[in-house]
Amino acid sequence: MEKIKIGIVGFGNLGKGVYEALKLAEDMELVVIFTRRVDDVKKQIGDVPVISIDDLDSFCESSLVQPDVVILCGGSKEDTPVQGPMFVKCFNTVDSFDTHAEIPRYFKEMNDTAVINEHSSIISTGWDPGLFSMMRVLFASILLNGKDYTFWGPGVSQGHGDAIRTIPGVVDARQYTIPIDAAIAMVKSGSNPVLSARQKHTRDCYVVPEVDADQSAIERQIKEMPNYFADYDTTVNFISAEEMKKKHSELPHGGNVFLSATTAGYHQSMQFNLQLDSNPDFTASVMVAYARAVHKINKEEYIGAFTALDIPLAYLSPLTAEELMKKI
Amino acid sequence: MEKIKIGIVGFGNLGKGVYEALKLAEDMELVVIFTRRVDDVKKQIGDVPVISIDDLDSFCESSLVQPDVVILCGGSKEDTPVQGPMFVKCFNTVDSFDTHAEIPRYFKEMNDTAVINEHSSIISTGWDPGLFSMMRVLFASILLNGKDYTFWGPGVSQGHGDAIRTIPGVVDARQYTIPIDAAIAMVKSGSNPVLSARQKHTRDCYVVPEVDADQSAIERQIKEMPNYFADYDTTVNFISAEEMKKKHSELPHGGNVFLSATTAGYHQSMQFNLQLDSNPDFTASVMVAYARAVHKINKEEYIGAFTALDIPLAYLSPLTAEELMKKI
Repeated sequence: MEKIKIGIVGFGNLGKGVYEALKLAEDMELVVIFTRRVDDVKKQIGDVPVISIDDLDSFCESSLVQPDVVILCGGSKEDTPVQGPMFVKCFNTVDSFDTHAEIPRYFKEMNDTAVINEHSSIISTGWDPGLFSMMRVLFASILLNGKDYTFWGPGVSQGHGDAIRTIPGVVDARQYTIPIDAAIAMVKSGSNPVLSARQKHTRDCYVVPEVDADQSAIERQIKEMPNYFADYDTTVNFISAEEMKKKHSELPHGGNVFLSATTAGYHQSMQFNLQLDSNPDFTASVMVAYARAVHKINKEEYIGAFTALDIPLAYLSPLTAEELMKKI
Repeated sequence: MEKIKIGIVGFGNLGKGVYEALKLAEDMELVVIFTRRVDDVKKQIGDVPVISIDDLDSFCESSLVQPDVVILCGGSKEDTPVQGPMFVKCFNTVDSFDTHAEIPRYFKEMNDTAVINEHSSIISTGWDPGLFSMMRVLFASILLNGKDYTFWGPGVSQGHGDAIRTIPGVVDARQYTIPIDAAIAMVKSGSNPVLSARQKHTRDCYVVPEVDADQSAIERQIKEMPNYFADYDTTVNFISAEEMKKKHSELPHGGNVFLSATTAGYHQSMQFNLQLDSNPDFTASVMVAYARAVHKINKEEYIGAFTALDIPLAYLSPLTAEELMKKI
C-alpha cells in the first residue's frame, strides 16, 4: 500500500511530537518539514528535507515529492491564522487552532480557500478543542436533559505561564491548573450543580523572580490579573531557576468531561478522562490520526474545511472496514 | 421545523426506554408502536397507534402517517435478525444488534435490503457494541502502540441471568458482573498487563431456588458452566423471591474502556466511563440519537447499512452547524 506523505509545518514541541508520532504510523511517511529555522532544524533532523516557510510557493510549484497532508504545528495566536490559508492552497491540512472566539472566522477562511483549491482541511483538532468537544456533543446528544462539565488538569496551562512572564521582575513561570475534587464529586453525584470558576479549579504558580524583584508586588499582580487569575484561588511560589528546570520542565496535562442526567427516574453518567504526561506529544498523536482522515476524505472528494465533529471515527483508523467490523 | 417521525418496534424494557427518551427529544415525535402484544400495549399507551408486527405490510402500503425511522427494540437473538430486514424494506432503521459473531452477516443482509429499498440503517448502536466500540477505535487510532481494555460493570448481565434460569430447580436469577479494582489499577498504571478473564471480573449470582431444590447441585452447575462462569471466580447466593423483587429488580450497568501507551518516553492514558442506573433506558437514549442521525443521512442519500463508526458525531445532535461550532 502506498504510504500517506506527510509534511510538518513548525518544529517546536508540537512539531517534534508529530515527528515522533509518525514513527509509529506504518501507513505514513514524513516527506518534508517547513520551518523558519532551517539550519537549526537541519542539525536536529538528518533524513528529511527541511524547507523554509518562505519558500512554500516554489516548493509547491517545483518539488517532485509533495506531501498529501501537512500538519500545522505553529502557535494558534500568530502562526496558524496566517499559515492555515497559506498551506491549504497547496495541500490538505490539519491544525489544532484553539482561539475559541476566532474559530468561526478561521473556519470560513479555510473553507473558502480549500474549496477553490480542491483541498480538504480539518481544523481545531487536538484534545480541547478536539476530543473534549466531541465528547461534549456526543454526551449531550444522548442525554438531552443533562449538563456537561469540563475539568482541566492537573496540568500545565502554557497560556497562564505566558501571562505571568509578562509581569516586570519575572524571569520564568509555570502554572498548574488543579481541578477541585469536591466539585468533581458534586458533578458525579448527578446534582447538576452551578459552579463558579473558583469552585472548579485552583491555580498554582511557580515563579523565578529577578534577583532584586519585589516578590509581594509580583504575587499581587498575578492574583489580580483579570480573566487569568482574579476569579480563582491562586497560590504563588517563588523558586530558583535550578528548581524550575529540575521540577517543572515537563508539560503534563489532562482533564475530564462529564455529563450526567436523571431520565425517567434513573441516574445516568458519562465520563471521558485524559491523563497526559506530555500534552504536546498527545496533541500530536491526535493530529496524526486526523491527517489520516483528511487524506481519506479528500480522496473521496469531500472538499473544504471540517471539524472533528464532521469526521466518522472509522476514518481515523489505519484498519480496514473488515477489521473495524470485528472491533464492533 | 418538521419533526422526525419515529416508530418503536417491540415494547419491552428497551421499547419503553425509547418511549421515555422521545419525550425529551423536541425534534421528534412518536407516531406508531409495532408489537406482538397489541392489546397489552394499548392498555399502557393511550395516545399512539399500536400496530401488530404481523400487519407491517398493510401498514406500510396504506397508512397515511409513516415513520421516518423505526427503532428496533426486540431481542438480538430471536427478534432483530428477522425484524431488521423486514422493517428496513419499509423504513430507515436503528437497532442494537449485539450478537458479535453474527454482526458481519447481519450487516450484509441489512445493507443489501436497505440499498434495494433506498433506505438507511444504523446497526449495533447502544453502548457495547456502540459507544464502547467507538472509543476503542478512537483510542487505538490515536495511540497506535497502546492496548485497549474493557471492564464491564458493576452491573447486571442479563444474558448470564438467563443462563442460570435454564438450570433445573432455579425459579429466578440475577447475575452481577464486578470489575476487579486491582486489574483496573494495573491498566491505569500503563503497564499493559496480560489479564485472563478471571483476573478482570468476578461474577455474583443471586438465585431463587425451588422449595426442595438441591442447592449445592445448582451452585456446582452454575460455577462449572462453560463460557458463562467456568473461567471466573463466581459467588452464588440463594435468596427468596421477595428479596429478589425488593433488592434486585433494577438493571444497572456500566463499565470502562481504557487505552494507555508510552510514546517517546511519556505515559498517556485515555478512559471512557459509564455509570448507568438503568441499562435499557440508557441504550434507548443512544438509539434515539442514532435515529436522528439515520434520518439525516438518508435525506443526504447515504443509502445502505452503517455502524456508529461511519457516522459523524454532528449528525447525532439536535443542534445546528452554527451552534455546534460554538461547542467546539
